[in-house]
Amino acid sequence: MSSNSLLTTQRVFIDLGERSYPITIGAGLLGDPGTYLNLPSASTALIVSNDTVAPLYAQSLQLALQGHYKKVLQVILPDGEAHKDWPTLQLIFDALLANGCDRKTVLFALGGGVVGDMTGFAAACYMRGVPFVQVPTTLLAQVDSSVGGKTAINHPLGKNMVGAFYQPERVICDLDVLQTLPPRELSAGLAEIIKYGPIADMAFLDWIETNIGALLAREPAALAHAVRRSCEIKAAVVGQDEREAGLRAILNFGHTFGHAIESGLGYGQWLHGEGVGCGMVMAARLSQRLGLVDVAFVDRLHALVQRAGLPVVGPRLSDTDNAGRYLELMRVDKKAEAGEIRFVVINGPGHATVRSAPDALVREVIDASCG
Amino acid sequence: MSSNSLLTTQRVFIDLGERSYPITIGAGLLGDPGTYLNLPSASTALIVSNDTVAPLYAQSLQLALQGHYKKVLQVILPDGEAHKDWPTLQLIFDALLANGCDRKTVLFALGGGVVGDMTGFAAACYMRGVPFVQVPTTLLAQVDSSVGGKTAINHPLGKNMVGAFYQPERVICDLDVLQTLPPRELSAGLAEIIKYGPIADMAFLDWIETNIGALLAREPAALAHAVRRSCEIKAAVVGQDEREAGLRAILNFGHTFGHAIESGLGYGQWLHGEGVGCGMVMAARLSQRLGLVDVAFVDRLHALVQRAGLPVVGPRLSDTDNAGRYLELMRVDKKAEAGEIRFVVINGPGHATVRSAPDALVREVIDASCG
Repeated sequence: MSSNSLLTTQRVFIDLGERSYPITIGAGLLGDPGTYLNLPSASTALIVSNDTVAPLYAQSLQLALQGHYKKVLQVILPDGEAHKDWPTLQLIFDALLANGCDRKTVLFALGGGVVGDMTGFAAACYMRGVPFVQVPTTLLAQVDSSVGGKTAINHPLGKNMVGAFYQPERVICDLDVLQTLPPRELSAGLAEIIKYGPIADMAFLDWIETNIGALLAREPAALAHAVRRSCEIKAAVVGQDEREAGLRAILNFGHTFGHAIESGLGYGQWLHGEGVGCGMVMAARLSQRLGLVDVAFVDRLHALVQRAGLPVVGPRLSDTDNAGRYLELMRVDKKAEAGEIRFVVINGPGHATVRSAPDALVREVIDASCG
Repeated sequence: MSSNSLLTTQRVFIDLGERSYPITIGAGLLGDPGTYLNLPSASTALIVSNDTVAPLYAQSLQLALQGHYKKVLQVILPDGEAHKDWPTLQLIFDALLANGCDRKTVLFALGGGVVGDMTGFAAACYMRGVPFVQVPTTLLAQVDSSVGGKTAINHPLGKNMVGAFYQPERVICDLDVLQTLPPRELSAGLAEIIKYGPIADMAFLDWIETNIGALLAREPAALAHAVRRSCEIKAAVVGQDEREAGLRAILNFGHTFGHAIESGLGYGQWLHGEGVGCGMVMAARLSQRLGLVDVAFVDRLHALVQRAGLPVVGPRLSDTDNAGRYLELMRVDKKAEAGEIRFVVINGPGHATVRSAPDALVREVIDASCG
């Protein structure tokens, strides 16, 4: 029986016309065959996972799916952002083709953001598109990466540069799996939860500040609320702008600096959520220097990111011109236009916008933020 | 001045809601800056071509685009179906990222079906989608592959297994470029033109029979009519079924056998259109053995395919079990479901449908068709 069995299962809907789908949030969902009713019919399912998560949950998912599909296959990828690349993606295609999988085959992404992004991209491309289901096993994936249909792999010259907008059939957020998450991964997930406050909902930021202890202690009710509210905000934004023509870019608050850190250190050194945590503090500082928020706002975010167990001091990416290296890396950000970096800034608590900033000001922020 | 300058430029529209676009058919279009008016605005364009086509036309396209974009870049791929793979696709991403191309960058596919499929797939994936324009330089690409948004690369275990449905902004069919086409490529294009007769329009088949000499002699008026009518039929089918949920599969008449030939011999041995030509004769024989058309229909198609300069005898793909090898290769066709091969058959002149067939009957057809 689930440790959280007193929690009610909740649903958040992503409204995208014929591509709409539900996010199911609750305890004990992953191993329950009832979770997977009414998916597109197929003879074969393929579970894609990694060598860290598979030993914990693949067998449970396999058993839950066996009543729904004649064949349930597995492909296990090496764990980590460093493997979010083409050769690893190819392992999924190899498994599909070696097993004669047709274009009705349903893929199940069992893992964190990397597994979800790669499985989603594989589903987008295999025979030009097969259905897939997200079964996120990290807090970060549950509140952010598994929702909204962004899929991708990295290119040596930039993160998530090759990918697709491709929506899953369903997202299954089983809160029980968060109990086995390493503390560093828990904190990384908190970074994306904290993000939703400054960009969209200051009352949620208040709630996080009050409940950060309960979240770090993995209290089921606190986790349930944090996941649900995060998904609601993300659903509202994605429902208005699926392909990031405008509004959706605010969900990248902290990500421009964060991606530079991840890429500059080499993928896998810092977790994505760690880069975002530190990146949010830097983006808040930039907002303050642009005159959009006051110092108290920056201090408040800085304190919360730190309490969440996340880094607040940026790493040095170059011994000679650290700020220059950050700028160089940020110029290949997908939001950049004609070489001009576009930053997500907070222009008043609970509101975000995307704009450029003078290099000199950005350099000041980097210099003030790096160790 | 264009050799065909007396021809009027014609337009065929693909009606796909917000993804609608025109196919422009005429003489002297490729090098005319007016051809490229009103495309999505961007600072940079990237011409993707191959080492056979680029020396003939890249400079002309480059000059025509220079008034529209600040930077016009080129990436030249090795020519041929054998290079329709990930390492070659990666050359496009490398060029885009090395040049700091943002997500407004417009890609121009200058070449045949392989260049078009790869450029389209690169456009679908780069930063999760950038605009692209098809400038097909082969007859086959003008009447088939550049129209309809199917993009893909090959996998060692199957043709076009990794790809996307992704529509271009525009298709530019310059009839002048057909004058430089090698005879084998001209015939390959005629295969896809002939295809539209049996599946959709017997009057067009009559016209092709009457005008096959003019087409082989590359008479501009004949080519113009063949390209326009082919595009009209394809537009009507794709407009009803963009993602091949049903009807669109009839466009694959001859392709199930043809892909087996291409893949069994090794990509690049037979041209795609050669496989389709021979494959249509085999699919017609299968239709006849299923009792759907008479022998006269098969003989008529056989004669026309042969007159078009295309092979009508299938290659042996195995010394021990030739038919078995064909069947094995056809089971990984994208139309297959749960291991059952789905054939496009003619069920009455001008009408096609998709169905399975007993292995024994398929073996008879293969045995009767191979040398």
